[in-house]
Amino acid sequence: MTKMMKFKVDTRSTVELVKITSQVQNAVSDSGMKDGICVVFCPHTTAAITINEGADPSVVDDMRMELNKIIPFEDGYHHLEGNSAAHIKTTLVGPSEMIIVEDGRLQLGTWQSIFFCEFDGPRHRSVWVKLMPDE
Amino acid sequence: MTKMMKFKVDTRSTVELVKITSQVQNAVSDSGMKDGICVVFCPHTTAAITINEGADPSVVDDMRMELNKIIPFEDGYHHLEGNSAAHIKTTLVGPSEMIIVEDGRLQLGTWQSIFFCEFDGPRHRSVWVKLMPDE
Amino acid sequence: MTKMMKFKVDTRSTVELVKITSQVQNAVSDSGMKDGICVVFCPHTTAAITINEGADPSVVDDMRMELNKIIPFEDGYHHLEGNSAAHIKTTLVGPSEMIIVEDGRLQLGTWQSIFFCEFDGPRHRSVWVKLMPDE
Repeated sequence: MTKMMKFKVDTRSTVELVKITSQVQNAVSDSGMKDGICVVFCPHTTAAITINEGADPSVVDDMRMELNKIIPFEDGYHHLEGNSAAHIKTTLVGPSEMIIVEDGRLQLGTWQSIFFCEFDGPRHRSVWVKLMPDE
Repeated sequence: MTKMMKFKVDTRSTVELVKITSQVQNAVSDSGMKDGICVVFCPHTTAAITINEGADPSVVDDMRMELNKIIPFEDGYHHLEGNSAAHIKTTLVGPSEMIIVEDGRLQLGTWQSIFFCEFDGPRHRSVWVKLMPDE
Repeated sequence: MTKMMKFKVDTRSTVELVKITSQVQNAVSDSGMKDGICVVFCPHTTAAITINEGADPSVVDDMRMELNKIIPFEDGYHHLEGNSAAHIKTTLVGPSEMIIVEDGRLQLGTWQSIFFCEFDGPRHRSVWVKLMPDE
């Protein structure tokens, strides 16, 4: 149970929020952990993890549109790879989230889903999950 | 000690930062935990948790003003509920914080307080606290 | 192993991202912890912790430039100390990160480094590291 688990996410757009709640729940279920903390970590520097509304897809559409506006793709950046905006979005959203687990279930609010945030896709990506059980 | 604890926060404005350090410290004290980590988690999609200066109220006033400017309330959003700005602020600030606990006390820097960030109030809100004791 | 560890960071500019991966790895190595979670916490209200690309210095240069543009140094703030922009950046980037540890090594993606983000320097700063071992 102590080793981290990994799963893949294949993204299809430059900027895309992909719901990963079920993959994270599967990792918890497969581990047999009942109570503790689940850490979801993104090992990339142009992608991040967030928790937000998963019911109405227009929420993540608005988020994508507004993040692209706040951190423009082109803005006199010097990094030659041309993806500085993706790096900056990653730092603002952050590389990880932690979720409480009780009785084998991720404890999320009614409207909360976990999202993988692609900021420089499409790409083949990984997500790492680490479980910290009580006692 | 392993179950999460919950407390309520009632907000009074659309955007408001409410200091919750004492409620979080009370949860730690009630648990009897001496050393470990305290996770503070917001189960809402239009509210977040942050740690910042709690001494001069003008700091959170400036933060509220500037966040409303960076992520405008109206900006051609498509989400029909009309609160997309609140969802976007939530992802940028983040749904949780973790604080080190030693000898039963939250370990915070001299000027740090824990804040509940309301972005779509006024509402009745919940905060979840999970403790991960050493050993 | 249960006490937090601390190290110093001396910054030299107003806004500066300082790579601290090796100091954090040293804390893990000194503790003897093999597997678990490493929490890196910044006890200041005008500085933060992030994880991003450490290979090409132009990435953090672009990040510094763009954060200064998104959250301007002067913008009609009321806080008399004159560093409201630094407080706002701190809340957006966040005061901590957590990193999975396996076999005594921080588990980071190929391009990931841990950075101390100074937003109101130059100053003498502290970083706190807390380890949560498996079992």
